[in-house]
Amino acid sequence: MKFGPLTDQLIDALQCLPGVGPKSAQRMTLHLLERDRDGGAVLAQALSAALERVGRCQQCRNLSEDTLCTLCASSRRDKELLCVVETPADVLAIEQSGGYDGLYFVLLGRLSPLDGIGPSELGLDLLVSRARQERFREVVLATNSTVEGEATAYYISEQLRALDIPVTRIAHGVPMGGELEYVDGSTLQHALQGRKAVY
Amino acid sequence: MKFGPLTDQLIDALQCLPGVGPKSAQRMTLHLLERDRDGGAVLAQALSAALERVGRCQQCRNLSEDTLCTLCASSRRDKELLCVVETPADVLAIEQSGGYDGLYFVLLGRLSPLDGIGPSELGLDLLVSRARQERFREVVLATNSTVEGEATAYYISEQLRALDIPVTRIAHGVPMGGELEYVDGSTLQHALQGRKAVY
Repeated sequence: MKFGPLTDQLIDALQCLPGVGPKSAQRMTLHLLERDRDGGAVLAQALSAALERVGRCQQCRNLSEDTLCTLCASSRRDKELLCVVETPADVLAIEQSGGYDGLYFVLLGRLSPLDGIGPSELGLDLLVSRARQERFREVVLATNSTVEGEATAYYISEQLRALDIPVTRIAHGVPMGGELEYVDGSTLQHALQGRKAVY
Repeated sequence: MKFGPLTDQLIDALQCLPGVGPKSAQRMTLHLLERDRDGGAVLAQALSAALERVGRCQQCRNLSEDTLCTLCASSRRDKELLCVVETPADVLAIEQSGGYDGLYFVLLGRLSPLDGIGPSELGLDLLVSRARQERFREVVLATNSTVEGEATAYYISEQLRALDIPVTRIAHGVPMGGELEYVDGSTLQHALQGRKAVY
């Protein structure tokens, strides 16, 4: 009990945010109640509205406020190119890089049998039926470079092989600006295996 | 524009929280929308309720859900002892230390003429009239040890001097567990000036 049950509830509720523990939650609560009640009211309203209205794009499973997300609904995207990613955050990261102008498919996870996440949880039936209908020029697998991410990429590539669609995997190697000295061995192995002819 | 105007608004609104910038706000938004919609709903509700119902204690200006805060309303506190602090967070810190069982007066700031914060903004008239009525055995000044905090403590002590109430200032010195080698010069000066007889 700090100032009363309502402040305690707010301190508890704020801890559902990633990276917020009891101390930060207390600081945020005091800040909102003491100094920024307007900001708090805007936040409460924005949060309610977003929770109520933001759902999934029916085509790519990305977060969307309409049936189709802004990317799927856009006429400026290359509709023969599809990039498969794990999360909406990955879509943002690729969009911000500026290196891609095709469509996406968001798995909302990765294959993880122990957690009960199989092909149907990732919407792979939707992906395959879409690939069958739309005849993509290329499907880029951009799942994470973790064990589960690689397994997911392998599983999807096997599913699409039967449809005779070219499937690619994003390159792994030394990050731009990275110094070899500080790059881990596994990344260096991939960088060497994936070397390209200069001329 | 990331996923739509509502998610953008939520990302903006989250940045009113202390220590939350654009990147954390985006991560929080995706976390709430993808993985913790229940937690988000509880947060929106708790925030609205707290903003609506949490006000000020009429006696000590601390955050409170009722006319009197739990500390002022308690029968277990020493009502002849008053501790003057700058913020509700200071009340929590002192309460958690377990070293005090009197009442509080929360200034909600410190004297800062350049920011337009004078004695009336800090409720000093309320403090003086309360001191006149209740005849405290002792008033402890626990404002921060900053230039403004010291000036505020000095100003309050001058106001209470006329009422003939004993006024004390919390001790400044080497923190417990602190090594002399790493303590700054100003703190060491205070620690030496405030030395006590061992026997």
